[in-house]
Amino acid sequence: MRTRIKNIVMTPGVTTEAHIPFIDDAEILIDGQRIVYAGKKTEAPAFEAQQEIDGGGALAMPGLTNCHTHTPMTLLRSVGSDLTLEDWLHNAIFPLEKHLTDDTVKAGTDLGVMEMLRFGTTSFNDMYMHMDSEAVSVQETGMRALLGYGIVDFDESCSDFPPALELMEKWNHKANDRIRVSLAPHSETCTTKKLLDRVLDASLRYDLPIHIHISETQCDRDDSLKRQGLTPPKYLESIGMLERPVIAAHCVWLTDEEIALFAQKGVVIVHNPISNLKLASGVAPIAKMLKAGCKIALGTDGVASNNNLNLWEEMKLMPLLQKGTMLDPTVVSPAQTVAAATSTGAMALGYRDLGLLKAGNLADIILVDMDRCCPGNDRESDLVYTVQGTDVTMTMVDGKVLYHNGIYTTLQPELVKSRAKKEAEALFKRAEKAKSGANK
Amino acid sequence: MRTRIKNIVMTPGVTTEAHIPFIDDAEILIDGQRIVYAGKKTEAPAFEAQQEIDGGGALAMPGLTNCHTHTPMTLLRSVGSDLTLEDWLHNAIFPLEKHLTDDTVKAGTDLGVMEMLRFGTTSFNDMYMHMDSEAVSVQETGMRALLGYGIVDFDESCSDFPPALELMEKWNHKANDRIRVSLAPHSETCTTKKLLDRVLDASLRYDLPIHIHISETQCDRDDSLKRQGLTPPKYLESIGMLERPVIAAHCVWLTDEEIALFAQKGVVIVHNPISNLKLASGVAPIAKMLKAGCKIALGTDGVASNNNLNLWEEMKLMPLLQKGTMLDPTVVSPAQTVAAATSTGAMALGYRDLGLLKAGNLADIILVDMDRCCPGNDRESDLVYTVQGTDVTMTMVDGKVLYHNGIYTTLQPELVKSRAKKEAEALFKRAEKAKSGANK
Repeated sequence: MRTRIKNIVMTPGVTTEAHIPFIDDAEILIDGQRIVYAGKKTEAPAFEAQQEIDGGGALAMPGLTNCHTHTPMTLLRSVGSDLTLEDWLHNAIFPLEKHLTDDTVKAGTDLGVMEMLRFGTTSFNDMYMHMDSEAVSVQETGMRALLGYGIVDFDESCSDFPPALELMEKWNHKANDRIRVSLAPHSETCTTKKLLDRVLDASLRYDLPIHIHISETQCDRDDSLKRQGLTPPKYLESIGMLERPVIAAHCVWLTDEEIALFAQKGVVIVHNPISNLKLASGVAPIAKMLKAGCKIALGTDGVASNNNLNLWEEMKLMPLLQKGTMLDPTVVSPAQTVAAATSTGAMALGYRDLGLLKAGNLADIILVDMDRCCPGNDRESDLVYTVQGTDVTMTMVDGKVLYHNGIYTTLQPELVKSRAKKEAEALFKRAEKAKSGANK
Repeated sequence: MRTRIKNIVMTPGVTTEAHIPFIDDAEILIDGQRIVYAGKKTEAPAFEAQQEIDGGGALAMPGLTNCHTHTPMTLLRSVGSDLTLEDWLHNAIFPLEKHLTDDTVKAGTDLGVMEMLRFGTTSFNDMYMHMDSEAVSVQETGMRALLGYGIVDFDESCSDFPPALELMEKWNHKANDRIRVSLAPHSETCTTKKLLDRVLDASLRYDLPIHIHISETQCDRDDSLKRQGLTPPKYLESIGMLERPVIAAHCVWLTDEEIALFAQKGVVIVHNPISNLKLASGVAPIAKMLKAGCKIALGTDGVASNNNLNLWEEMKLMPLLQKGTMLDPTVVSPAQTVAAATSTGAMALGYRDLGLLKAGNLADIILVDMDRCCPGNDRESDLVYTVQGTDVTMTMVDGKVLYHNGIYTTLQPELVKSRAKKEAEALFKRAEKAKSGANK
């Protein structure tokens, strides 16, 4: 399919610039999965389009990358709110997750992907269970994702390792390039040295990135110190893991020395501001990390600790939290924020041709109606602080329109919602039954 | 007009309860400005309605009160982002505000009221200039507001005092009861003892509440200590002002002793979490204040330090910020948050018959589509953490529908936006001209 997106303002996205560039009277030309041209309309090459999308003056920009989430947990939305992390995990989340099935995970992923598309997210980085079902959902919906089987190992049995490799064999770079696979050991807390050695070995052998939770809570850090004599970042360094591409979720409790280490090693730190607040994990020192040259991406985390997959909420909060807690309004620019939500996330997923709108890159593009930002005094500020997720009017992944003005092309909203409700209800029943059985 | 709202779930709102009550299969009956019945459909009295609103299963709840804002500043949206407070005020905001006209303020207020109605705000508490224009907008749009002329006084001339009284004489409780007037001395920083004495006297004489900024920044507090030998709360106490109804915006830098004082005196503290973060003022100790028995309401502050009038963003952030900075996920409940956005704000505006859906109360009601909260595991959590401002489908003030499914009944959106753009442009030109004149 050859597509022209016309009548738009455009930002190609942000790399290292201090400001977000905007191009008025722009046009984007797409052939198949890739962008042929993105820039001034007057300088566009001759192009015969089979499909024309009229942006109606909206802003075209790179689609967002949700760089840390557990999409099937969309089914657990609003479960266990306002509990302590321990209560939340052990009394609300784990007792439900024990009873997940392939169908639960498929229903939860469909619901989550639908929400991400609605709010302009075009790719995501996930760690969960029953990953084959999640991959099927990504395949069917047209989404783009880096998927990792969430590996835990408390007894050195490494029993979660084979399914992680199976996921790779079945899905990595297969069928099309929308689905890639990571290795996702949960955290220092939930794994063993034996398991992490295997992960490291497989990461090298199969060229897979590693997705892991790092120092999410004070407790994560302190327990690692007790067990390993090292904090999680130093522990990963000690076993050689930082020589591989690592996506480190959270990093709330990093010292200056660890920040410098992650900057030097090129670790991508995924900031999940809402989840970190809701679970009372704390506020990650993002301004300091950016200053030290760290790569910062953005994530929503799972919906049970958010309760949305709306990355615009994270975009607004990322700079605000730093300003408010450091008492310095000049830290974290709109350009740094947009980069975290687009190009840095895309790079973390392993793509070198994603996250910026330019010729040759993959066509993951969204349209944002900036009309409500009236009178429109400052586009950079409006993009980060004014725009709502619902201002997204069109979401395109891999050159295909997946959402446009309320219409999904690969999902049937009413069906997705009714299945989600049915599966959630059945899950709660299974957990309830097991609980009452255990109490007998 | 006699109106029936049917096919709804309902929450009457929150007073002091630990949880938000919900009523399924509910119905609301409205006669003129007031609620006749709000409860179970099966228990509703016979009622002949002239108008029926089908909620389609949506949640009906009290409209939100934005308890601290400067609505005309909607015209200055995104101006001066990421500057220090001093830079923001002196180099971005004040140079523009010097050139405001009645038309600028009218255009800004119309734009702001339109946005508030869209996001389910049915009343607001304002402090600004050219207040007659703002009152005309409130009158015309059908909104409800407590309006105060923002009084500053640096030289004991008290020259802002007469316009504040004029506003009262012209608008307080006049025509209808949607517009009430406050006395709004800006802050300790920007006023004199002579002025505050006059305010206190007029507040008593005319029975007017007082709206004032209190300890917004560390600097506000420290400067007051230097000038008065007392912090702003203790200074207000010393001059007898806390014996009057006081709406104290911000209160970021309050000591435990001052929190106890405000609790004892019944001062309404207005929390503006986004503005406080954006201007790097800090995080108000709201959890501590609630525990001490303080009355907490919510506000957006002006749009230039937000950039929205979407109180749902503040609702999500109020509990999150406390959890994340106190490292305790159990503090600040959904019920406390909803009370801050509804009943406490309504009470602060001086109403005893607003903020709860019950017979006899004024009919300020909104409908919220909870469909996107699928699968809907916990309504309380969904209402605070999941719902977006755009999920509001209907906004009714004083028994009149002002917004319903994209349609405004008293405002013409395209006209409002084009006027706002024109007035903003003209304002920037006047300021630019004055600046270049001054530089000659």
